[in-house]
Amino acid sequence: MTPAPIRILGIDPGLRNTGWGVIEAQGSRLSFIACGRVRSDASLNMGERLSQLHLGLMGVIADHAPQEAAIEETFVNRDPQSALKLGQARGVALTAPALAGLVIAEYAANLVKKTVVGAGHADKAQVQMMVRVLLPASGATSADAADALAVAICHAQHRGARLRISA
Amino acid sequence: MTPAPIRILGIDPGLRNTGWGVIEAQGSRLSFIACGRVRSDASLNMGERLSQLHLGLMGVIADHAPQEAAIEETFVNRDPQSALKLGQARGVALTAPALAGLVIAEYAANLVKKTVVGAGHADKAQVQMMVRVLLPASGATSADAADALAVAICHAQHRGARLRISA
Repeated sequence: MTPAPIRILGIDPGLRNTGWGVIEAQGSRLSFIACGRVRSDASLNMGERLSQLHLGLMGVIADHAPQEAAIEETFVNRDPQSALKLGQARGVALTAPALAGLVIAEYAANLVKKTVVGAGHADKAQVQMMVRVLLPASGATSADAADALAVAICHAQHRGARLRISA
Repeated sequence: MTPAPIRILGIDPGLRNTGWGVIEAQGSRLSFIACGRVRSDASLNMGERLSQLHLGLMGVIADHAPQEAAIEETFVNRDPQSALKLGQARGVALTAPALAGLVIAEYAANLVKKTVVGAGHADKAQVQMMVRVLLPASGATSADAADALAVAICHAQHRGARLRISA
């Protein structure tokens, strides 16, 4: 019996640009649904920028009706003030799908790269290229959208194991 | 002519407990409306915890109808991973009032302490005590709620200057 298709939303959070990508996985078969970027206007204050990201992501979820979400675990080694700023955008990226009732899985960046490219140290260009190979219908995407599709692909490959673990 | 009263929501963001306080300011007269804490359940995943904070704050805004919001500028000097985590909670604390259409003012911690206690280096207990002196109706509050009321008081004192600057 073929498993039911599942729609996955991948998110690559960032204050200026939050990348997103939606794929459908049916067993090991993946298909591209949509991808893009939600932007915030740098001339506005922080609350307004974050609410632009929030409303943008809520719109993506309403438009494409994903059932599960995936996001990269963020490892920050830069200064604490940058980490605080990124955290604010990441808070929005976690809150929007949770409010919509989606379960959110987090994956280490190395696992995402290993799953998509085959190596944990792949650079952005390699991820972008392999996302295009795995999802030809996506065409050429921005680096943010490619990263979002990559974490969605990672979730498609690993969600079975996760579900078995938590069952 | 007496100026129209204005309702101010102060927020002290934190992942486990987000303190909030609502006051009404009419000229230099302040009155206490309500305060409390929104908690997140540490046994849930991050997305669910952040959405608990989001829904809690949206509830506070719906219940008490503040017109303006105030939050302390967060200065982080700890490790970047803690800053990222605090940033996630802070993102929610900024997004909820912005979604409700409130303008959000940010104040340096030193200015908040100086306004409420008279000294920029006051400790939490002094802030808590002075909040009780300035807003007797608040009674004994938690430290989180006192910090939230303190930033609301700071905004009540300084919003006039801000409005004149931006006019």
